[in-house]
Amino acid sequence: MLAGLEVIESMIDRGIQPRRPIAVGFFTDEEGARYAPDMLGSLVYVGGMTVESARDVVGIDGTVLGSELDRIGYTGSLPCPMIVPHAFVELHIEQGPILEAEGFTIGAVTGVQGISWQELTFVGQSNHAGTTPMAMRHDAGYVAARVATKVREIVSEIGGHQVGTVGAIELQPNLVNVVAARATMTVDLRNTDDKVLRDAELALARFVDAAARDEGVTVESRQLARFEPVNFDDRLVDIVESSARAFGYNVRRLPSGAGHDAQMLARLCPAAMIFVPSHNGLSHNVAEHTDPDDLAAGINVLFDVLLHLAEES
Amino acid sequence: MLAGLEVIESMIDRGIQPRRPIAVGFFTDEEGARYAPDMLGSLVYVGGMTVESARDVVGIDGTVLGSELDRIGYTGSLPCPMIVPHAFVELHIEQGPILEAEGFTIGAVTGVQGISWQELTFVGQSNHAGTTPMAMRHDAGYVAARVATKVREIVSEIGGHQVGTVGAIELQPNLVNVVAARATMTVDLRNTDDKVLRDAELALARFVDAAARDEGVTVESRQLARFEPVNFDDRLVDIVESSARAFGYNVRRLPSGAGHDAQMLARLCPAAMIFVPSHNGLSHNVAEHTDPDDLAAGINVLFDVLLHLAEES
Repeated sequence: MLAGLEVIESMIDRGIQPRRPIAVGFFTDEEGARYAPDMLGSLVYVGGMTVESARDVVGIDGTVLGSELDRIGYTGSLPCPMIVPHAFVELHIEQGPILEAEGFTIGAVTGVQGISWQELTFVGQSNHAGTTPMAMRHDAGYVAARVATKVREIVSEIGGHQVGTVGAIELQPNLVNVVAARATMTVDLRNTDDKVLRDAELALARFVDAAARDEGVTVESRQLARFEPVNFDDRLVDIVESSARAFGYNVRRLPSGAGHDAQMLARLCPAAMIFVPSHNGLSHNVAEHTDPDDLAAGINVLFDVLLHLAEES
Repeated sequence: MLAGLEVIESMIDRGIQPRRPIAVGFFTDEEGARYAPDMLGSLVYVGGMTVESARDVVGIDGTVLGSELDRIGYTGSLPCPMIVPHAFVELHIEQGPILEAEGFTIGAVTGVQGISWQELTFVGQSNHAGTTPMAMRHDAGYVAARVATKVREIVSEIGGHQVGTVGAIELQPNLVNVVAARATMTVDLRNTDDKVLRDAELALARFVDAAARDEGVTVESRQLARFEPVNFDDRLVDIVESSARAFGYNVRRLPSGAGHDAQMLARLCPAAMIFVPSHNGLSHNVAEHTDPDDLAAGINVLFDVLLHLAEES
């Protein structure tokens, strides 16, 4: 967002008056860590979710999104879906290791992986860890552990761009000497190929059912988010690539492993993204870092691409 | 404790004045769910832990045991270890399914399983669940899941009386789209044979080290409790058994799967336990239940055994 403001300020400073107006977009809840699904704000903007159902979303801390937006004064009055832009361009850190490892300064992003988020809840029976024979247990925590292990196995078997993560596990009552009555866990699966992603989901679902049955626990599955892979607009990706080349930056085309607002806007208008390198590929980590020169390179390309698009008839 | 008071009240009501005084013991923190180790109070009573180090124990909620005892007015003034009793007898629910399944009213407890509690902490690297290639991950949660699965495998391979439980797992930051940087888990292993229990601990330790190395995460292990199996006093077990027979109750000898204060007192004096059936073997569960007739049978045997021992010269 700051880069967008910088681009507009630079245009004003230089007295540039483009044919088309340029606006900076900033969407609620891109990360989705507190309110699922992620990219909720841009999903609402493009009409993929109603404002009302978005406002009703309950966060992991029990708060309601609409009330929180009211509280911090971020509730707007315009309807959604909103104005259809001529084009949408997003600058972002790669959040992965590829650009740095291969010596590129700019990534021309070709699309975004499909994302599948689900929450699994297993309910067994709490019981004494010392006196309950192993054969009589209905251990929800054990099933969650088996599933978390299986996610890695499924991902390894598929290989390629497939990734899978169990980032959250919670047991109840979560005590050393009590068999867990209840386990809640999340599974994050992503692939650039939706068919392969569906295969991964199916393999997981089969295992989850079998593992729950083996242990005599029940299972409930809730989809937290499901987005198909997105291909960005080829013409825009070409513009990003040639702009970077014109500046003399090393540039390569690559897909994004993370979800971004641009994938939502791609439903509405031609969209594309510019990536800059992440040091050691780290992201969602306090050590996340991008070199200032790379940040400047990204803003230069953003300026150039936006001006190019804003001058189009 | 209520059964003990009932026995003493009945003796007073009947004008019985035994040769030896009878006291009801009630020890702090038998369960150990909040402050480890379990049976902390009786351990201190017999001199296995100093009062000072017990008071310094920090609970899972961050509170300090000594301060909490002060707060509720349960801090005593007598030194530990304390008076050595002539004998110690404890009445308890079985917390397991054996007596009910086999049609017995009374269990004459022969001893207590050895208990091994440890906490494992894995530290890896938090990172983005979408952009981080699988081969570059240091996922602490994945290692915890592998270890939890392995505990069941080790226990199955050993068989017999071996039990093992992972009752608690906590991930950080515990978010759907972030690889876990940190995982803390507990492992509870128990066996009536200390040599076999040590084998289980060793097999687990080997796997933990290998799994942590495979994923490039560090591991720290902390022993929360470690008690060798205890054999109760044969003469006392015989007294329990013949008392139950004299009442006409079906009685069998059996070991205890759970830890009890009597195992600590066994370090100091002859000790034994009386078990009554647990409905469906359930314990540490809101559905825990023992039939009132079985409770009465247990109290009858307790009365008879205590009177017998109190009349000994």
